[in-house]
Amino acid sequence: MRPLKSMISADEALDIIMSNVRTIEESESVATESADGRILAMDVRASYNVPPFNRSAMDGYAVRSSDTSGAHADRPKKFRITGKVFAGEKGSIEVNENECAEIATGAPVPEGCDAVVMVEDTGPVEGEKGTVMILRSVGSFENVSLAGEDIKKGETVLKRGTLLDPPRMGAIAALGVHSVSVLKKPKIGIVSTGNEVVPLGRELEESRIYDINSYTLSALVKRNLCEPVTYGIVEDDEAALRAVLEKALDNDLVVLSGGSSAGERDMLADILGKDVLFHGIRIKPGKPTLFAVYRGKPVLCLPGFPTSCLMNGYLFLAPALRKMASAPERERKIVKAKMGQGVKLSKGRVKNVTVRLENGYAYSVYKESSTITSLARAVGFITVDADRDTVEKGEEVDVELFSW
Amino acid sequence: MRPLKSMISADEALDIIMSNVRTIEESESVATESADGRILAMDVRASYNVPPFNRSAMDGYAVRSSDTSGAHADRPKKFRITGKVFAGEKGSIEVNENECAEIATGAPVPEGCDAVVMVEDTGPVEGEKGTVMILRSVGSFENVSLAGEDIKKGETVLKRGTLLDPPRMGAIAALGVHSVSVLKKPKIGIVSTGNEVVPLGRELEESRIYDINSYTLSALVKRNLCEPVTYGIVEDDEAALRAVLEKALDNDLVVLSGGSSAGERDMLADILGKDVLFHGIRIKPGKPTLFAVYRGKPVLCLPGFPTSCLMNGYLFLAPALRKMASAPERERKIVKAKMGQGVKLSKGRVKNVTVRLENGYAYSVYKESSTITSLARAVGFITVDADRDTVEKGEEVDVELFSW
Repeated sequence: MRPLKSMISADEALDIIMSNVRTIEESESVATESADGRILAMDVRASYNVPPFNRSAMDGYAVRSSDTSGAHADRPKKFRITGKVFAGEKGSIEVNENECAEIATGAPVPEGCDAVVMVEDTGPVEGEKGTVMILRSVGSFENVSLAGEDIKKGETVLKRGTLLDPPRMGAIAALGVHSVSVLKKPKIGIVSTGNEVVPLGRELEESRIYDINSYTLSALVKRNLCEPVTYGIVEDDEAALRAVLEKALDNDLVVLSGGSSAGERDMLADILGKDVLFHGIRIKPGKPTLFAVYRGKPVLCLPGFPTSCLMNGYLFLAPALRKMASAPERERKIVKAKMGQGVKLSKGRVKNVTVRLENGYAYSVYKESSTITSLARAVGFITVDADRDTVEKGEEVDVELFSW
Repeated sequence: MRPLKSMISADEALDIIMSNVRTIEESESVATESADGRILAMDVRASYNVPPFNRSAMDGYAVRSSDTSGAHADRPKKFRITGKVFAGEKGSIEVNENECAEIATGAPVPEGCDAVVMVEDTGPVEGEKGTVMILRSVGSFENVSLAGEDIKKGETVLKRGTLLDPPRMGAIAALGVHSVSVLKKPKIGIVSTGNEVVPLGRELEESRIYDINSYTLSALVKRNLCEPVTYGIVEDDEAALRAVLEKALDNDLVVLSGGSSAGERDMLADILGKDVLFHGIRIKPGKPTLFAVYRGKPVLCLPGFPTSCLMNGYLFLAPALRKMASAPERERKIVKAKMGQGVKLSKGRVKNVTVRLENGYAYSVYKESSTITSLARAVGFITVDADRDTVEKGEEVDVELFSW
């Protein structure tokens, strides 16, 4: 058995990983309705003006603004109505001096008109059909959305690398674009290792445990804009590990769980050999973590214990996934809290202690790195320095909230 | 033409909507690997202990802890090795007084043993195979994860209503559950109305605009754990509107855009008649918004202008969707900023002014409610009281960041 040697700090580990994963540049075309949440692979340029025509912003009367000069509630001006323009109709209504056209919101402003008086600023003419009283003067282009006011033809509306969200989906739809080029999702090969690990749904023989890490890591991968490709469970057997690695290297990154601690059967370090960039991080949980660039592909070996695995997935894998996917960096949400209990820890490594929050107090929910409930009951974690072995009750702590 | 009457405040509007949408109780079964991001419809109870057996937490030597009493680096104790236990193997190794079994992390602790000495606390015996020096005494259950330590058989691990995330997926996987009962996604019927609106991809005739709202609303609906069901574009024709409403009422809520302002062709208010609970909100953008409960189903009519539509979708529809889906309430993220420019506004309604942020300064990106770029260029918005018509340059403002 070999103890882990030459461990590095969490910051060093993250730096090494981040500088050894590449951003995926390949693109694919998707229907606009499926593009939300994807990253644009192209600049979106406007081939139309939006709106494409001078459009009424109000229900009211289209006029030549100069004709309304001096109109006032006490001194209304009478206009002859020459017709009606509805939204979606081109119409061919003529409007001359002291004439107007009834117009609906969204309808094109008739030629010759340069403004709309809104219906609230008009009144009927007693006993006289086909006319309207204008009660307020309007300036040029008042209540009119000019052609190209929203988006000008030729303008770059959205740049390559933009993460699409509902309003940006709207900008694409405004241009009539029915399919868009988005960056391909990085493919992440996921392998669980260990003779004791069995798939869900199977009867559990004694000495066996279910495969947790494939599920937590797949969910993490999807939430970070990548696509998981799972390879099931592989036994601690060198030939089997080599074979699955061979297949999984088709992906842009491979993440394995288990098989990277100091045990006799831990063969991954041997297989990856000289391509290992680090083995062991000075943190708890998550020490037996290994990273290699093997045949040009990043390979991350996480501990088999589910909380160690997912915690390091959160700390080291997720930022790498986001870089590969061109996704914006994850926001760190930190809240102040007081410890509701004292916590005894060990010295020597930086400790990430998972906590729940209650009335502004933080309580440790951390049991062992082997217990998934250490994470499934947590809202976040506190980080305790390597040289400290206690957190005092009542101590003020920074809780980093998980942002899965 | 009818001006909007009896407008209500944004708070009143939200209250009315929220108290008239129901939480969906129906469930469906999904494979565990597809369950992330869904809401549990059942309590998840443990039918196994996790771990199911006393498990070694370390690579090392399983012992009877009492035999190690007094062991120390200066006073090591010699133990006979009776065998090896690997993870996934039941084994039948016997360990008696001053004996031990080599054991791997995750392997079942042999009967009779109650602790594991980690490999770092042992040493070889010079020239003597089959024995090991124990350099440190261990307490009962040291380095052993007891059966049920993570999850006890019979325990409720996750409650109905839990939003599944990676660690909670892990808790389900730990129990071997390969399919879970989750709440059905509320179905939301989406209808765009207006003679001027055309589908994406079609050539744009003059006086027409593309359908933006189906795309922004569908994305919003998906992001709030509901399922959009789109009905395309319907002309401003009473029979056509009645027909599409008939179909769309199959869903749990119907949202229409367009056709709710004061225009002659705005027929929705007439169709919904006495079932209208409000028509008009004292906000800008988004005034011509209507809500009804029609044949027992909530029907929300949003303005046709894309920024009005999506802004009200954000403010009024999203909270309703989350209630229907049993999703946690949206977190409001508010940051302080100084206005980088003065903004002129109108009095009479509460204004939501969309802004971008730059170096701690907020700049309005709001043009008109008709312009989608008023939202597509924004990171959030400031809310300005009804009786104010300016925001001063340098004024401190609260910017609510969008959380799409």
